[in-house]
Amino acid sequence: MSGRLAIVGIGPGSPEQVTPQARAAVAEAEAVFGYGPYLDRLDIPAGRKNPSDNREELSRAESALTRAAAGQSVAMVSGGDPGVFAMAAAICEAVEHGPSHWREIEIETIPGVTAMLAVAARAGAPLGHDFCAISLSDNLKPWEVVERRLAAAASAGFVIALYNPISRARPWQLGRAFELLATILPGSTPVIFGRAAGRPDERIETVRLDMADAEMADMATCVIIGTPLTRVLERAAGPIVYTPRFVPEAQS
Amino acid sequence: MSGRLAIVGIGPGSPEQVTPQARAAVAEAEAVFGYGPYLDRLDIPAGRKNPSDNREELSRAESALTRAAAGQSVAMVSGGDPGVFAMAAAICEAVEHGPSHWREIEIETIPGVTAMLAVAARAGAPLGHDFCAISLSDNLKPWEVVERRLAAAASAGFVIALYNPISRARPWQLGRAFELLATILPGSTPVIFGRAAGRPDERIETVRLDMADAEMADMATCVIIGTPLTRVLERAAGPIVYTPRFVPEAQS
Repeated sequence: MSGRLAIVGIGPGSPEQVTPQARAAVAEAEAVFGYGPYLDRLDIPAGRKNPSDNREELSRAESALTRAAAGQSVAMVSGGDPGVFAMAAAICEAVEHGPSHWREIEIETIPGVTAMLAVAARAGAPLGHDFCAISLSDNLKPWEVVERRLAAAASAGFVIALYNPISRARPWQLGRAFELLATILPGSTPVIFGRAAGRPDERIETVRLDMADAEMADMATCVIIGTPLTRVLERAAGPIVYTPRFVPEAQS
Repeated sequence: MSGRLAIVGIGPGSPEQVTPQARAAVAEAEAVFGYGPYLDRLDIPAGRKNPSDNREELSRAESALTRAAAGQSVAMVSGGDPGVFAMAAAICEAVEHGPSHWREIEIETIPGVTAMLAVAARAGAPLGHDFCAISLSDNLKPWEVVERRLAAAASAGFVIALYNPISRARPWQLGRAFELLATILPGSTPVIFGRAAGRPDERIETVRLDMADAEMADMATCVIIGTPLTRVLERAAGPIVYTPRFVPEAQS
């Protein structure tokens, strides 16, 4: 008798940005898995919490699937959206490579506001036209692939949102990414460092690409790099950064 | 005396996917602007509604800014997220090119679940690794730019989410995009047509790229095109489509 697994996105951090659908899925679950600090943002009785650290995604997925396969109603919580550099793909991988009866588990994914949308909202409308999202982690892909994607995206005029920009184990990648992008984009291209958008410790800073320093980011930061068309609109209350919807013939 | 303008994302369509923050911003506004069907999804007294059709974004932005500049508290509603091919960039453009006192209006953007996240959640985890979002509309950019971006993204291994894939005024662009992508990606690449995700008339279909037909999409569809690594996992309850987090050395 298989149970069910809800993969739940709880948004970037503010309780006001958790959808009613996500809150209901967590409330209904008999067991809730996820990174400890994410679980602490929700009102979950201690007996139902199964916190883990922020690594070991595959073993966390397997634990949750094992419980669901035994008939329980299980929720797996992700920050932001579970489909964007988070738990949904890890769970699909575990199902594909796990025992065949795991394919009978009812799986539902509940989307959430992912970090780049929350950061973009606080900065203006930097994702106002075509954009991409790249994880800067080279734990699971060769660094050469990251560089090729950065160069392709910047050359083709995409706004670029960087997830997982930096960590203790990956200290140099963001600096290297800025160096590479500076060979393609003008030095004046706006770069937004968006940390903890919507949370009390939020910090949103915009600098020119030629002033961007990897030290301005930490693990909780989403970095958004504009295009040559991205504008910074000065106002007394602070700048608005936006990428116009219109692309002139000459720009490509 | 300037008022304020909230640019509000109400998500893909289900009331369960509207954040409390979005609902509060609409409830507090003296005047609510937006595409008529989006306003109809919310509980807004008729006297506060200012519906418009789904074109004329700039004039809609100007109307809302004019009311806000006169001291009113105004909300501008977008489906999905307002920063993704929606009203936020149009409002920033209007502010930049409008009267200088518009820069004194307090502007707040409230993010929402954008269509590709809702479609991906229903399909599995197709955005499980690096991805991009491209508007297929050539109303505001040359078609050559669209083609260059499609080719760059597919060649570099990005999953591609297509917004605005087709309309009466733009009938051939999606078919042309599939033709172009078929010269770069294997015929077996999964393509998801996600229509009205989370709404009663939802329809999510996955086909191979060499079977993809533009007729399967309409204006309310978000099309997600996988990479050569994207997997279709068969199950009795229906397939799961996901893009693994791991990229092998050989794949790039």
